[in-house]
Amino acid sequence: MGSEVRTGSTWAKSAISHCAAWLVAAVVLAGCAGLPATDPLPSWNEGATKAAIVKLVSDTTRGGGSDFVPPAERIATFDNDGTLWTEHPMYVEVLFTIDRIKAMAANNPSWRAEQPFKAVIEGDREAMAKFTEADFFKLIAATHAGLTSAQFQKSAADWLAVAKNARFNRLHTELVYQPMLELLAYFRANGYKTFIVTGGTLDFVRSFAEKAYGVPPEQVIGTSFEAKYAFTNGVASVVAEPKLMLLDDGPGKGVGIDHYIGRVPIAAFGNSDGDLAMLQTTTNSPQSKSRPRLAAFVWHTDAVREYAYDRDTHVGRLDQGLTLAPQLGWLLIDMKKDWKVVFPYELKP
Amino acid sequence: MGSEVRTGSTWAKSAISHCAAWLVAAVVLAGCAGLPATDPLPSWNEGATKAAIVKLVSDTTRGGGSDFVPPAERIATFDNDGTLWTEHPMYVEVLFTIDRIKAMAANNPSWRAEQPFKAVIEGDREAMAKFTEADFFKLIAATHAGLTSAQFQKSAADWLAVAKNARFNRLHTELVYQPMLELLAYFRANGYKTFIVTGGTLDFVRSFAEKAYGVPPEQVIGTSFEAKYAFTNGVASVVAEPKLMLLDDGPGKGVGIDHYIGRVPIAAFGNSDGDLAMLQTTTNSPQSKSRPRLAAFVWHTDAVREYAYDRDTHVGRLDQGLTLAPQLGWLLIDMKKDWKVVFPYELKP
Repeated sequence: MGSEVRTGSTWAKSAISHCAAWLVAAVVLAGCAGLPATDPLPSWNEGATKAAIVKLVSDTTRGGGSDFVPPAERIATFDNDGTLWTEHPMYVEVLFTIDRIKAMAANNPSWRAEQPFKAVIEGDREAMAKFTEADFFKLIAATHAGLTSAQFQKSAADWLAVAKNARFNRLHTELVYQPMLELLAYFRANGYKTFIVTGGTLDFVRSFAEKAYGVPPEQVIGTSFEAKYAFTNGVASVVAEPKLMLLDDGPGKGVGIDHYIGRVPIAAFGNSDGDLAMLQTTTNSPQSKSRPRLAAFVWHTDAVREYAYDRDTHVGRLDQGLTLAPQLGWLLIDMKKDWKVVFPYELKP
Repeated sequence: MGSEVRTGSTWAKSAISHCAAWLVAAVVLAGCAGLPATDPLPSWNEGATKAAIVKLVSDTTRGGGSDFVPPAERIATFDNDGTLWTEHPMYVEVLFTIDRIKAMAANNPSWRAEQPFKAVIEGDREAMAKFTEADFFKLIAATHAGLTSAQFQKSAADWLAVAKNARFNRLHTELVYQPMLELLAYFRANGYKTFIVTGGTLDFVRSFAEKAYGVPPEQVIGTSFEAKYAFTNGVASVVAEPKLMLLDDGPGKGVGIDHYIGRVPIAAFGNSDGDLAMLQTTTNSPQSKSRPRLAAFVWHTDAVREYAYDRDTHVGRLDQGLTLAPQLGWLLIDMKKDWKVVFPYELKP
């Protein structure tokens, strides 16, 4: 491959002569970056978990070190439900979907006689408890079908602005994890691109990810639907169809990372068996050995401040992962032990 | 949506006190950025085309201006074939596919009796001239199926290291357009993320895009195949299947931008009717009006230095686009008139 990216040499020379100060500035900035920051992760207790994370970031960004990773390869991926925000007692997108299906029922009269819609509209908890994954995706697909991304995102944002978690009586976007917000910011401050790799739908998570996490839409990878492009009366639109394109959960997270990122992450954070493929991809791909890698589960051990669950839960089950973690050298982030605070509002006076 | 990204205030204070110089540096850098650079696009002739591009970038990055675009929204998208590199006499990936199918024939003896493989193996130009799009995708899919991204990319990189364009007797990666390399660098220097949105396959274009264009894999959107994740003997892998997932051409480019970027580009560059949806999405989405937008075709008008073709060609046909451009205010980049040089090697002594 012959060519390298070149900019005009005249322009380059001009930039240097006009801006000799730039070099001074760069040296000053490099000096800043090199200073040991007091604590980039103030909501994390000291211990092996925090030390391992700080070591990875330090090792991969120390110029001249054997573990140095060029900025272009600095990729960190994060699951959303249970890793960045609370997923109990139920995934937030499922709560949204139920409310949305009810709101859409008036315009879809046939749903009153058709499962799984009928059960949702009637609030039939017994029938809903028996829903299969296919039932849920039929409901979720119905909330997207016929809408553009912008239209769906508005419906999600409107709901998120008012819907609250029943136990905490807080907006769902208030139930993001403060230590994970710090972790996202810490990676980004060290030149990492932070990606969300979620089983939720692209547009549900994009509706709040930039504001809540600082993650732009192009760095959200999620479950997606087939869509149709049209140019009608001078207006371009992409409208979702009720047919899955990528189920970005479980093995699908391996496919999602391959298609959307095309590079093995340096670090990956999940909390359930739905994240196994993401963590395996990070530490056990053929390319993994070339760089330091870190994979970790947020382990829900704190029934008082949040929830305690792992092997036996139906939402965010962590069973195979707890067995695999010690075998593959994955970290367990013990919520109770490792986190000083859980939610951002705990920091407010 | 309640929460904003927060880092620990202790850390923030420390960073400020240790690095008061940072502020000085930032001011110096801002001053540099504000200087009129001598010429960021030295291979472009002066004229309306260059002026329109420079105006867009200036307007969208001038702090306090009414057309200012926040960095997170600065997205520029580029088609590849015919926009960033030469696509005549034939798309490079098609040339690769033909060579690759021939190389794979020994291990696939059944292909000798099966179209479209038979025609390729026998070099039957008459039969190949009648290939449908479905035939081509059957061939392209066969070059990917059963391989991981890394394995496919190696096969492509090995081929690109030696295969040459017949007319110019140059590697294909030497036949990238110098003015477009400058344009990519110019956008990036002004805080834009540059994306490739190609009808070629994800992994073919990723095999050279970072080195040739400075575009990392996560900013390449292309035609993709369904894939299967596996974790076998402690090794994670994603293997392609011979089934299209996204045909990222024509209307598919609208879907690709929606799924992979999730934001309307500020600027888009194509060269054929296959790029209509990308350009329409840029200038004619409901969100388009909120910001300045620019859409342009590279118009192949230079039979001496490269090729001249538009309405009548079979490769990279620009027909509807030439009609739509004046109606929708799209630029035509006239290769003969607007470009001082075409290829980077013309600059070498």
